[in-house]
Amino acid sequence: MKFLRLLLLLILLPYGQLKAQSLEDYKLWLDYSPVQNTDLAADYLKITRSIYVDDADPILAKAKNELTTALPQLLGKKLVFTNQILPENSLVIALYENLPKELKEQTKAEIENSTDEGFLIKSIDLKGKSKIIISAKKEIGILYGVFRFLHLMQSHQDLNAISIADSPKIDIRMLNHWDNLDRTVERGYAGFSLWNWQKLPDYIDERYIDYARANASIGINATALTNVNANALVLTPMYLEKVEALANVFRNYGIKVYLTARFSAPIEIGNLKTADPLDREVRKWWKDKAKEIYARIPDFGGFLVKANSEGQPGPQNYGRNHVDGANMMAEALKPYGGNVIWRAFVYSEHDDTDRAKQAYDEFLPYDGKFMDNVLVQVKNGPIDFQPREPFHPMFGALEKTPLVMEFQITQEYLGFSTHLVFLPKLFEEVLDSDTYRKGKGSTVAKVIDGSLYGNTLTGMAGVSNIGNDLNWTGHPFAQANWYGFGRLAWDPYLSSDNIAEEWIRATYSNDENFIQPVKKMMLTSREAVVNYMSPLGLHHIFDTGHHYGPGPWVDNLGRPDWNPVYYHKADSLGIGFDRTPTGSNATEQYADEVAKMFNDTDKIPERDLLWFHHLPWDYTLNNGETLWNGMALQYQEGVDQVEEMIRTWDSMKSFLTESQYNEVAMLLKIQLKEAKWWRDACLLYFQKFSDRPLPAGVEKPTQTLEHFKSLKFPFAPGIRPSWD
Amino acid sequence: MKFLRLLLLLILLPYGQLKAQSLEDYKLWLDYSPVQNTDLAADYLKITRSIYVDDADPILAKAKNELTTALPQLLGKKLVFTNQILPENSLVIALYENLPKELKEQTKAEIENSTDEGFLIKSIDLKGKSKIIISAKKEIGILYGVFRFLHLMQSHQDLNAISIADSPKIDIRMLNHWDNLDRTVERGYAGFSLWNWQKLPDYIDERYIDYARANASIGINATALTNVNANALVLTPMYLEKVEALANVFRNYGIKVYLTARFSAPIEIGNLKTADPLDREVRKWWKDKAKEIYARIPDFGGFLVKANSEGQPGPQNYGRNHVDGANMMAEALKPYGGNVIWRAFVYSEHDDTDRAKQAYDEFLPYDGKFMDNVLVQVKNGPIDFQPREPFHPMFGALEKTPLVMEFQITQEYLGFSTHLVFLPKLFEEVLDSDTYRKGKGSTVAKVIDGSLYGNTLTGMAGVSNIGNDLNWTGHPFAQANWYGFGRLAWDPYLSSDNIAEEWIRATYSNDENFIQPVKKMMLTSREAVVNYMSPLGLHHIFDTGHHYGPGPWVDNLGRPDWNPVYYHKADSLGIGFDRTPTGSNATEQYADEVAKMFNDTDKIPERDLLWFHHLPWDYTLNNGETLWNGMALQYQEGVDQVEEMIRTWDSMKSFLTESQYNEVAMLLKIQLKEAKWWRDACLLYFQKFSDRPLPAGVEKPTQTLEHFKSLKFPFAPGIRPSWD
Repeated sequence: MKFLRLLLLLILLPYGQLKAQSLEDYKLWLDYSPVQNTDLAADYLKITRSIYVDDADPILAKAKNELTTALPQLLGKKLVFTNQILPENSLVIALYENLPKELKEQTKAEIENSTDEGFLIKSIDLKGKSKIIISAKKEIGILYGVFRFLHLMQSHQDLNAISIADSPKIDIRMLNHWDNLDRTVERGYAGFSLWNWQKLPDYIDERYIDYARANASIGINATALTNVNANALVLTPMYLEKVEALANVFRNYGIKVYLTARFSAPIEIGNLKTADPLDREVRKWWKDKAKEIYARIPDFGGFLVKANSEGQPGPQNYGRNHVDGANMMAEALKPYGGNVIWRAFVYSEHDDTDRAKQAYDEFLPYDGKFMDNVLVQVKNGPIDFQPREPFHPMFGALEKTPLVMEFQITQEYLGFSTHLVFLPKLFEEVLDSDTYRKGKGSTVAKVIDGSLYGNTLTGMAGVSNIGNDLNWTGHPFAQANWYGFGRLAWDPYLSSDNIAEEWIRATYSNDENFIQPVKKMMLTSREAVVNYMSPLGLHHIFDTGHHYGPGPWVDNLGRPDWNPVYYHKADSLGIGFDRTPTGSNATEQYADEVAKMFNDTDKIPERDLLWFHHLPWDYTLNNGETLWNGMALQYQEGVDQVEEMIRTWDSMKSFLTESQYNEVAMLLKIQLKEAKWWRDACLLYFQKFSDRPLPAGVEKPTQTLEHFKSLKFPFAPGIRPSWD
Repeated sequence: MKFLRLLLLLILLPYGQLKAQSLEDYKLWLDYSPVQNTDLAADYLKITRSIYVDDADPILAKAKNELTTALPQLLGKKLVFTNQILPENSLVIALYENLPKELKEQTKAEIENSTDEGFLIKSIDLKGKSKIIISAKKEIGILYGVFRFLHLMQSHQDLNAISIADSPKIDIRMLNHWDNLDRTVERGYAGFSLWNWQKLPDYIDERYIDYARANASIGINATALTNVNANALVLTPMYLEKVEALANVFRNYGIKVYLTARFSAPIEIGNLKTADPLDREVRKWWKDKAKEIYARIPDFGGFLVKANSEGQPGPQNYGRNHVDGANMMAEALKPYGGNVIWRAFVYSEHDDTDRAKQAYDEFLPYDGKFMDNVLVQVKNGPIDFQPREPFHPMFGALEKTPLVMEFQITQEYLGFSTHLVFLPKLFEEVLDSDTYRKGKGSTVAKVIDGSLYGNTLTGMAGVSNIGNDLNWTGHPFAQANWYGFGRLAWDPYLSSDNIAEEWIRATYSNDENFIQPVKKMMLTSREAVVNYMSPLGLHHIFDTGHHYGPGPWVDNLGRPDWNPVYYHKADSLGIGFDRTPTGSNATEQYADEVAKMFNDTDKIPERDLLWFHHLPWDYTLNNGETLWNGMALQYQEGVDQVEEMIRTWDSMKSFLTESQYNEVAMLLKIQLKEAKWWRDACLLYFQKFSDRPLPAGVEKPTQTLEHFKSLKFPFAPGIRPSWD
């Protein structure tokens, strides 16, 4: 045994060296470092002494592949597989239907309770021998189970008496890539699109496989490859052949491909004169298109559609409505089991209603009118992925329509890929919000997982933060947001605290002295960005187009609701958007209990204050400060929090390779610089209205307001391409 | 010793596993696999037993860093360094001036003969002890020497009696990146720009360092970061700060940064009304700009300029000429030691002279009129980076002007990054071409290295094929083109055969059974692409804009010389561009001996036939075939050669990991598909004129000409961005 340990150490030495290179970041949370704790390693060696894996199917073969990749790295040994299930097996991985009777008996209850995607990992005793069984109803359950099993080893969990039965709580767990056919990515800050359309279908980049592995490891089972601001060309045979090649890769990891469907495609690529959803030829065109797609991709997921929103074509161009449009597509996809995911992110240039109210107003009347393979996808808040928004009033309001939660993982409004912001904290806040639609406890999570109204089809979508950067997400910690989104789509009741810990263990270290401070840093990071960008319910005060940096002064854009001044409404009297009954009355779209809370400055959480109220500069906050002073101090607190993050990271140096330390240290330095920019620019601007001095404790701005207003960023990344 | 070998094997096991991943491609030719030959390893262990490295300077520290990265991987051992030069040292790495007397004596002759960038690696005997000395006049020579030393080990060379004294034959060895500020890359097929302008200057991507390492390892010492179709913004303080950050990285690897200077910058970013090079304010603006740049980057290389070419602004806009423009900038850079590299790639829409003649006509009169820090950069051939061109007539014609050779490493016209084409074969053909300007033996290489006319400043530039793909160049074998360019810029007399072998050893394997067949495949690959794209001197018959695939039929573009029909001139009588005295008389721009050869169909190499002659379809080729039949057979031969490449690669499987095999196999499959596309499209189109059947041996086209003409590629990569 001692010799084995020595061997282990020797074998594993070179990994340490490679760790020094940025390539390590490529491996995401699937980086299987050797288990250094020798007692634990001995346990794990025992558990993996003799393995049986059912691999009679492509998905099962991938599961086996994960074992043969990970275990030698974790344990430094070659694996012994048996061809059939034998009494000597210490680890048995097989579909439930293929288990021998005595193993079935010990797993039956859990398997029966699991869904088609669920799995069981259970330590059992058979004839005095202990073994671990990983089983499931279906192949994909086995793959998920294997990934979980490896994660448990990777995070040094005791597996001796393990019993985990887990099934996803949401059906469609999906990434939305806003990727264009020229490989630019709208709101992408991690390089460019992974999809190399030029080399597809014949060249399958290994990265497609690693993308699928990463997704499957956290249970993501769907991906929309293309931008919601869609190009119809992706529906032509030349591109469908390429999509098919990707689908062939992803299928073996349980991932279905969706495409964004441009509503005007029948005109643009179908030579029709109209895209009217009630036109016979148009309807036939979509049916033929669906048939063509399914001939290539039998498990095609369906269409994701942005229609009549921000200039995209839609049914309203022909005097029809969203139901007409969505159901037309749903009818075409229905015979093949495909879905339409129809986005509710709509607001009209011809409607001067508070933009926050428009989606609800437009969609509420349609509840119950969509076909059963239509889901309506709703952004987490009523405006647009701000650092903080109250939950979208559509959640809980529509009863018969399955609502897909749309989170934005890419940090369009949260510092691009240079700010460390742990988003599961934001996602958790939204999911835990109580809609009160069926009384107390009617949380958004319950809307999304279908339990509140008994919806049979459910979904959660995350706008991807993935690009072709070596480390996938631009910021190493942004990997945690991809990870965390996947985990919450699997189980929207998980805590952001647990997710952070899982990710830290899988990515960096199992040492508590690293885990605890870094977890704390992650968990406070979201509040930090709110503080230094838009505290107290401020929102959408970003510079135009690229949304990089502050632009609260912008007032010259074509539509009122494109201008920051529309949202903060700062004037000499005060600041904030009155959405109570004395204002836009957006609060009426919430359940009474919620509306009452939001309407009442005594009851509303202060974090949402200026979202719903226009208040005087000397309004008194809970902490006794005036609104002006409190706001200024909160901007300062955001900056202070980033400084604290830097101190935390600096104190972690001993756990990190030089490059692991450096890359995050450099990014935190940028974050601090930009946090100060936000603080200074916003306070200088708002000070013009408040006409009050900065309170003690707030650092003096280093530049003038004119300087901040003069900054131009013509090549900031992520802007919508010019051909759109 | 046996135990050591066992250890070695054990330690190195995990590398084998990691090899299976595409990440390995990232390491380029700096992938230091363990030396498995135990005798050799024992030798190398002896040589590296005790090392002294002078590291009292950033460049020297980088040299030491390379040793500590590579040697443990090659030899599986920790290194022992001494603090001073001791008798026990087996390896001494130090500047010549710091060597002790007895070591100086044994290296003096070679060091005195070397340039400031040269180095010596020499095995010597001192008091009965043998040791290897790596020395040089300057720090950069040490770095180059260390890279060469490591390459020798990596390629399993016997180092026992080594004595290599080597100095670069060309001063400026430069990459030209056609990278835009939005990170698109004009003619880029390996993803997008490495330069992440958004995150610069504060975030230093490790990739910048690895880029510098790769370049230094082959002697590249200059890089122009931005597209010759330039954006003036790169000269503003916001971007200069970012350029400075890159220069700070590259400086430690002996690499100078150049920028492309947009001629109209004084108007666009300087608020001047003119960019007239004789205007006092304009001249002052450039002087101030140079001063500003050098304050940030004391070793800034200078400006690379494309002026009055393809719509770029230039001195001619103000009635001035290239000398006026270049000298104005040269004067601004002169005080700081900077250079102007002025491109000769000019042709005018107002000039109906054969485009092949225009650059020569325009520049010849300026010979001797440029300041001494101006170099004129000339593409290898007179048209534009075709699969084959005769050498540019400017080489050898200008005596007093240093001419920089411009090769295109990125495969704009050679199959993008999906075709395996070993370009050093092309480069070698050009460099070996005899201009006869000072009699026989006046090769292009001698023009470029300055030896023909005694030019004191010399340069070679390669348009980069580097992007942010994981493997840097899109095609794994395209790495060999970057490598080979660097080697030829160092020594334009190297053979492509040797370069191929060096690269194969460093990248794949030292096994002769792998080296020989793969080298053969590489060396024939360039002739293959000529055959299946444009045999017998055909040129520029590419589809419009993107240059992806054949477009010999294109005849509707704005300027005659943008249309393929301008170049092939196929008609019912024959095909080819008559550039003899009966035609455009482009041959007059060459030395008499060369002109006579080109003019005479009996003497001209058949590979250049249709570049210079319009010949009837039944003209008889050397092999007795008619021109039509011979051309058709050559197209077929190109396809056959790709099929042979596929067979070669398939037979190499046992030397390769699965992913190493697969990635190239997939690409070769695309190459074969596209070779057939070229053959079929071109032959079907030319057949309309020849009105003759395809000869026996040529496969029947699988598609109609109409089909090929209908193909559209709106998102083919590498197109000039819309903002230009």
